Amino acid sequence: MQIAIVLFDRFTALDAVGPYETLGRLPDAETVFVAEETGPVRSDTGALAITADRTLAEVPNPGIVVVPGGPGQFAQMENQTLLDWLRTADRTSVWTTSVCTGSLLLAAAGLLEGRRATSHWLALDFLEQFGAESTGERVVVDGKYVTAAGVSSGIDMGLTLVGRIAGDEHAQAVQLMTEYDPQPPYDAGSPQKAPAHLVEEFRTNSRFALT
Amino acid sequence: MQIAIVLFDRFTALDAVGPYETLGRLPDAETVFVAEETGPVRSDTGALAITADRTLAEVPNPGIVVVPGGPGQFAQMENQTLLDWLRTADRTSVWTTSVCTGSLLLAAAGLLEGRRATSHWLALDFLEQFGAESTGERVVVDGKYVTAAGVSSGIDMGLTLVGRIAGDEHAQAVQLMTEYDPQPPYDAGSPQKAPAHLVEEFRTNSRFALT
Repeated sequence: MQIAIVLFDRFTALDAVGPYETLGRLPDAETVFVAEETGPVRSDTGALAITADRTLAEVPNPGIVVVPGGPGQFAQMENQTLLDWLRTADRTSVWTTSVCTGSLLLAAAGLLEGRRATSHWLALDFLEQFGAESTGERVVVDGKYVTAAGVSSGIDMGLTLVGRIAGDEHAQAVQLMTEYDPQPPYDAGSPQKAPAHLVEEFRTNSRFALT
Repeated sequence: MQIAIVLFDRFTALDAVGPYETLGRLPDAETVFVAEETGPVRSDTGALAITADRTLAEVPNPGIVVVPGGPGQFAQMENQTLLDWLRTADRTSVWTTSVCTGSLLLAAAGLLEGRRATSHWLALDFLEQFGAESTGERVVVDGKYVTAAGVSSGIDMGLTLVGRIAGDEHAQAVQLMTEYDPQPPYDAGSPQKAPAHLVEEFRTNSRFALT
């Protein structure tokens, strides 16, 4: 199964690497990082670059499409080359997936209309504007569309999908190999759990608050 | 604070990207990916490459050293250039850290002798051969040495260290921003929790079993 992970300027690295490290361990995985042009693509902090090994045009029919998010996604929502590629790839994909605000790109391409979906907690209302039903769940499976919440949730999404594709035991093996037995030192990973003033600060300062 | 994340051929991507996405969000973080030579460095699957923006020699005194693991770490255990760099950088570092089998590199450099430390669950015995006391905990802090267990544990390590450096509230903000509210679809992330036959298969087929 060919897995295309889309890169664009100012993506969030963990959004892409969580699914890479899980889905990429499917028995017959052929993972390929794709972008409009080949070469290094910089993340949101500017400190990390992942190489796009193939152009979008060179990978027209992946079995799994993975779209990460990140602040750079805003600019991509008007990138017709990328949106066209998403629509075309989606016609033949077995699974079309996203992490974080990557779901806004799927939505902008018209792929989530009337579907249950999720996104980074700051972007849930924005997702609704594109006709998706935003659930706020961590991983949402609606038909072949699998969307995950913010950044780190791509690991949970990847394991969920590995289980669906290759069975529970293979997913458990991937979880064991990546030692995914999370023990966060704090319990502030969602707006329901984090201190209210932190949530408020993010909402006030977020670009999503302005839309 | 300058954060140097070390890359080498066949590293495990999530080992590096977990700390990048957490430590890299310290208020004054200057994260830099380093390797013997600049340019793209391929991960263990071959499908992902992160760019090393600076050579080891160009970054002699980082405040935080981060050493990921991965199957490529075996070859690096005899790479005197890297081991020398680790010893030198450690002389002035505020924190010296590792994820997964990255701790074997710290150990091979002689930095963990007599210290409590951890590693990927398959490598714990191996770690002991270098004079470290391997604990099997997910994140171990012994003085300025912070080691994490396999692959995904670098996220927990990063958040722990963000809390120590910048305070609990900043760490909680990073956790909220990365929406790190893990909900693994299985509970097989450690050898204590995974089906026994899977653990046995990994032990039998692991390179560590042959040492």
